Amino acid sequence: MTGEAVGTEADAVLWREIEAQPRVLAGVAARHGELARLGRHLWGDRRPPLAVLVARGTSDHAAVYARYLIEVGLELPASLAAPSVYTLYGARPRLERAVVLACSQSGASPDLVEVVRGARQAGATTVALVNRMDSPLAEVAEHVVDVGAGEEVSVAATKSFTAELATLAALILPASAGRLAWEGAEALGRVAEAAAAAVAQADAVAAWARRRRDWRTMYVVGRGFAFPAALEIALKLKEMAAAVAEGYSAADVRHGPIALRGPDMPIWLVGGRGPALGDLVALAAEARAGGSPTLALTDARELADAADEAFLHAPLPEVLSPIPAAILGQMAAFHLARARGLNPGAPAGIHKVTRTR
Amino acid sequence: MTGEAVGTEADAVLWREIEAQPRVLAGVAARHGELARLGRHLWGDRRPPLAVLVARGTSDHAAVYARYLIEVGLELPASLAAPSVYTLYGARPRLERAVVLACSQSGASPDLVEVVRGARQAGATTVALVNRMDSPLAEVAEHVVDVGAGEEVSVAATKSFTAELATLAALILPASAGRLAWEGAEALGRVAEAAAAAVAQADAVAAWARRRRDWRTMYVVGRGFAFPAALEIALKLKEMAAAVAEGYSAADVRHGPIALRGPDMPIWLVGGRGPALGDLVALAAEARAGGSPTLALTDARELADAADEAFLHAPLPEVLSPIPAAILGQMAAFHLARARGLNPGAPAGIHKVTRTR
Repeated sequence: MTGEAVGTEADAVLWREIEAQPRVLAGVAARHGELARLGRHLWGDRRPPLAVLVARGTSDHAAVYARYLIEVGLELPASLAAPSVYTLYGARPRLERAVVLACSQSGASPDLVEVVRGARQAGATTVALVNRMDSPLAEVAEHVVDVGAGEEVSVAATKSFTAELATLAALILPASAGRLAWEGAEALGRVAEAAAAAVAQADAVAAWARRRRDWRTMYVVGRGFAFPAALEIALKLKEMAAAVAEGYSAADVRHGPIALRGPDMPIWLVGGRGPALGDLVALAAEARAGGSPTLALTDARELADAADEAFLHAPLPEVLSPIPAAILGQMAAFHLARARGLNPGAPAGIHKVTRTR
Repeated sequence: MTGEAVGTEADAVLWREIEAQPRVLAGVAARHGELARLGRHLWGDRRPPLAVLVARGTSDHAAVYARYLIEVGLELPASLAAPSVYTLYGARPRLERAVVLACSQSGASPDLVEVVRGARQAGATTVALVNRMDSPLAEVAEHVVDVGAGEEVSVAATKSFTAELATLAALILPASAGRLAWEGAEALGRVAEAAAAAVAQADAVAAWARRRRDWRTMYVVGRGFAFPAALEIALKLKEMAAAVAEGYSAADVRHGPIALRGPDMPIWLVGGRGPALGDLVALAAEARAGGSPTLALTDARELADAADEAFLHAPLPEVLSPIPAAILGQMAAFHLARARGLNPGAPAGIHKVTRTR
């Protein structure tokens, strides 16, 4: 970590978790064989009519990513569950033969455990993606997948998020019969390299953060596969840097929220090279025309050129580009916090494990 | 409209659309018979395995409401579609026998038209809920339902939203076999009365807005059936009052965003009397403990007492309470805008019909 970024010990711990991501992602790439096997069993042999994703907070953004992987890659409808349907209202939507996939770093959220238990009793195939194999969620699901991020102690989840994304890609893409452009297992290895190259931009990100320390409210916009990365970066900006940041899809931001564009509403654009790129490039122009400062996190030169500033990551297939983009976003949130004299490793009023019902 | 609230002619038009809601809702109640008939055909006779909801912007919040109605009331899984899956990525998730329900005031969004056309070709039962029967969406769907809000010209949708909610309730609740507590068609009539009583609070809302004109950033929090109303009120605050307002479920706001609580982050609490109430009451206490001013929109005395201030609406079954709560939220957004000297009827940079792909 660069000297000026050092804050408390908690900040140093958080930064080490951010820096660990290349290693964590290499670990996921090394497990691609077993993940592909489980994926072919889940999606190929069982041919479910529906996938239901269950998660909260950061892991819910990984679930949004899974939804795009499943609907685009497998052409299977996927639904993001509202746990309150099960926990507060006691309803039991018919899920026989569905694959119900829960994501949770801690595996300790009672609501997720209840949804998965109910779904399993109802005949669904249940899968838990967790970072804690000794968790209640791991106990209750039929199949348990370790995302392998290693112990994560910071309140703001970082390495567990990108480990979830890579694990989901490894679990779903091999069953996609080529509907999504990626180069198989080898591409997963390149994700780890792209993550390392992103982390290596720490000094540039820190210098940028000192210039932009006055950014207090902002939108973070993606579309398609990059939309979940935008949601997650907005949450990191809230948690670490106390910024009022909201994540949007490029389509939805035009349905009203764009009214707030202007010098006090910087717009971040997150996206790779693929079908969603043109829409983001167009949005960058609309944002700038309205006076919003723009920042791109991308591997697409076209998007970087359309924005006022950009952090570029190494080129990847679109479906995997949200991983290094999310890392750059985490780094930006961390350094914005430090530039403001905040301690991103110890945000006020939130806890690592949130026990909602 | 109270004298001091008069701004431009566009503001007066918007206020008339807000005021029209009791009449519009009485119209939906009058059509309950035909809506119940179609609902029993869709959900009862056809027994679909899945419902897919397709919408953008304000209507997407109505779709979130439909999701709770369908999952809790019919115990049928419901998925909120991501149009980009269909339009940008060209995927065709398998939707044979599903009910695909699109909501749109204008019925003119090309992405929604494309999703519904593709779903119908794939064998889904398609339904369009529109406010314009002469629209492309109405043309492409098998079943067309007029929400009957009458011409809506203001950029910020108001009466079309509550008309959508009431129409969805009338279309889904009669098939719920008593799983949701409401008193049948008669309850729909009471919604119109509750809307009239909400509109009658205009002077109190205007006076409140003058005191709170400095609120610039805020969270609007609901849970369960009230969650879509929270999302919609946040959007109205953005569109009309240029406030950086974000909608959350009471569960998700605890997974990180609560870190921003404090005097500069008022928290609005939206909810009726039902299983979600306790969670909102608890959140009100957490918000106040963290220094956030709190405002409740509710018919529950318990929640009003837990917050610093409240606007109470007439008592309704929980499932219908989001309708008057949304109206109070629209009125609050309108008057906050006017108290700041803004023109809520003519927000900058957005258009009535958004043509995204």
